[in-house]
Amino acid sequence: MKTIFKNATLLPEYGHGNRSLYVVTEDRKITEITEKCPNLSEAEVVECNGNLLIPAFYNTHCHAAMTLFRGYGEDLPLQRWLEERIFPAEEKLTHRAVYVATKWAIAEMLKSGIASFSDMYMFENAVGEAVLETGIKANLSRSIVSFDPDIDILKDSRFSESCELIRSYQNADDGRIRVDLSLHAEYTNVPRACRDLAQYACENRLGMQIHLSETEKEHQECKARHGKTPTQFFADLGVLDTPTTAAHCVWVEDGDIAILAQKGVSVAHNPVSNLKLGSGVMPLRKLLDAGVNVTLGTDGVASNNRLDMLREMQTAAILHKGVMRDPAVTVAREMLPLATHNGALAQGRGDCGKVQIGYRADLVLIDRNSVHNMPSYDDYAMLAYSADRSDVLLTMVDGRILYRDGAYTSIDEERLRFEAREVFAHYFD
Amino acid sequence: MKTIFKNATLLPEYGHGNRSLYVVTEDRKITEITEKCPNLSEAEVVECNGNLLIPAFYNTHCHAAMTLFRGYGEDLPLQRWLEERIFPAEEKLTHRAVYVATKWAIAEMLKSGIASFSDMYMFENAVGEAVLETGIKANLSRSIVSFDPDIDILKDSRFSESCELIRSYQNADDGRIRVDLSLHAEYTNVPRACRDLAQYACENRLGMQIHLSETEKEHQECKARHGKTPTQFFADLGVLDTPTTAAHCVWVEDGDIAILAQKGVSVAHNPVSNLKLGSGVMPLRKLLDAGVNVTLGTDGVASNNRLDMLREMQTAAILHKGVMRDPAVTVAREMLPLATHNGALAQGRGDCGKVQIGYRADLVLIDRNSVHNMPSYDDYAMLAYSADRSDVLLTMVDGRILYRDGAYTSIDEERLRFEAREVFAHYFD
Repeated sequence: MKTIFKNATLLPEYGHGNRSLYVVTEDRKITEITEKCPNLSEAEVVECNGNLLIPAFYNTHCHAAMTLFRGYGEDLPLQRWLEERIFPAEEKLTHRAVYVATKWAIAEMLKSGIASFSDMYMFENAVGEAVLETGIKANLSRSIVSFDPDIDILKDSRFSESCELIRSYQNADDGRIRVDLSLHAEYTNVPRACRDLAQYACENRLGMQIHLSETEKEHQECKARHGKTPTQFFADLGVLDTPTTAAHCVWVEDGDIAILAQKGVSVAHNPVSNLKLGSGVMPLRKLLDAGVNVTLGTDGVASNNRLDMLREMQTAAILHKGVMRDPAVTVAREMLPLATHNGALAQGRGDCGKVQIGYRADLVLIDRNSVHNMPSYDDYAMLAYSADRSDVLLTMVDGRILYRDGAYTSIDEERLRFEAREVFAHYFD
Repeated sequence: MKTIFKNATLLPEYGHGNRSLYVVTEDRKITEITEKCPNLSEAEVVECNGNLLIPAFYNTHCHAAMTLFRGYGEDLPLQRWLEERIFPAEEKLTHRAVYVATKWAIAEMLKSGIASFSDMYMFENAVGEAVLETGIKANLSRSIVSFDPDIDILKDSRFSESCELIRSYQNADDGRIRVDLSLHAEYTNVPRACRDLAQYACENRLGMQIHLSETEKEHQECKARHGKTPTQFFADLGVLDTPTTAAHCVWVEDGDIAILAQKGVSVAHNPVSNLKLGSGVMPLRKLLDAGVNVTLGTDGVASNNRLDMLREMQTAAILHKGVMRDPAVTVAREMLPLATHNGALAQGRGDCGKVQIGYRADLVLIDRNSVHNMPSYDDYAMLAYSADRSDVLLTMVDGRILYRDGAYTSIDEERLRFEAREVFAHYFD
């Protein structure tokens, strides 16, 4: 499978802002970037009209199936939201509902330029099915909770589900799908389970997805319970010795940041969810200055309500300026790696997230000619401040075009709409 | 001119969430809302397919022509941004550049569902031309600055420009265009000029547009200079006795809020601009609780970089929850009036901003069926959290459809693109 993007503009770091380059992808990779017209035979040619070809987005924190709960239970305090709305709703989840809702989420993500997402949920094998079918990338994980201090987590059913997931999907389709382990959070797990799972992860070279210091309450209660912060708690139990993505980190302290940097933990910044749930604002500048691999995530739709990485990037791009009252505290150009290559690194996909020869062909074509993007004196500023997901003209994952000009190539939208309407309509009956 | 919206869903406050209503507009007004099919003859029928017909958006703070500076001079401290980039760029402005850039801004606004904007800039007669031509509503104002303590502002050329503007455009096209006076800000005006202009405004029943307590520096320096806050300064000089829209109000104090409420001042909240410029976060909850008429504005594109009221509304809807760390501090349903009827009130258009019989037909049709809006258990939540401007299917202003399904009826887009490219390309030569 060979695709040639013709008359593409690449960002300065990839193509010096040149507006008429050819970018060639063969099978899953970018094989050529050139000013000279390559051999066009036996290739699909995509005329870019000078539009901007950028790395696709990596959404490093998501509960895709929660799309089912979009707009269900708004504007409630966190505990009431969870206890009165989300937990009872999740009680009724089925394999089928998770499968359909995840596929629906994938449709939204592809349309928003997202090539890959990290998922943490239940019925995760249903998520795997939807991912396998649709061609998107994902790091799947079945989140584990434990409340019995003496639990042998390796005999727990959630761990078995994780192992089943690994058998079914680990490195499926040439690594397009990966499986991570997941400890839901400090406040939902006992130390022994954390230690045992961490050891298993390290021995089996598995990634780990966790929630970390999302709310002040959780952060302070951990200190009261264990005499240490959640970051120290996980570090002491060996959890951070396996490649870990820690979602939120709103309340991390300076010592925590040093640990995250030293352990090479990736942080998933979810600015929209953190605002909407009233959790607070993550110290982005401090994390970046400490050299932490900061990435971006949408979290689940129930707390967002979008799966829109451009919006996450743009919210991050202005939020920290405003809260720190310094318009220079972050610059536009710093934002894109958070949504792209850093996210790929967090997912253990070092060969993804850049428009460079040899990298996987995860690409998005952005409309530079829409009314709201002109004039553009700086394409980084366009991405960080003015573009929106309606500017996504095409999304390619592993060399395969999955979305283009409003249509999906791997999803039968009409059928999905029928299935989704059925699930949505009957779910809360 | 008669238009019938068929199978429209109205918000609960207008149509009890009914999904198959007929909404009839005749000439400039909404004349009928009914379940029964009205006489369809001699009417343009718009099939809504159950999509959501809402009041159009009122953008109460804008410098439309600054669209010319989108992405020009990013991520700089405010003073450097103004002095090194914006002021020198504005020195080069011409009538032609302002006309074309404003028309470009209007194209973006109509596409984003904006029916009306309040503008404060120079070459404002060029803004008036663009507004008159395109069919959008606007409250024009030529911003006045004064630095000589003895100035007779009523003999100043900027005041003459205001008067010229009033002669040309006040209540033009059956009130579609209005003209306000504008004192740029406290720090750019001397007391005498403020007092004289306020008196003129009151005597001539003119609205007033001002910047107020946008930055901490401006707020504190006013207190040092005059021994009072900018709000007290303007109140004492009689400025707030004329219907006033005060943009920003980030740093207003409790006493100021009481004055704003008591004087019936409308506040234009510009959350995106305030974040991007590092100004801070306006105390929205306090202003609402005090009964202040809070509205939303985009500010100029140079500090946003979009003219997108859904984004302003959504940023406001999550920002205050996050900063105040309370997900219940605002609720979705509170947000829409800020972007609609409150804005109309600020512009002195009490018969605008609601989907009710007798109101002006400023309407927007929102796609309830886009992937990112489904499921929707609550249309208010959809508007506040998930919809984006690509969901705007149609924008009607004063009973006239100006934008529908990607196309303009009053703007020759191809010609505008040609003109805009010419202006953009040569502006910074």
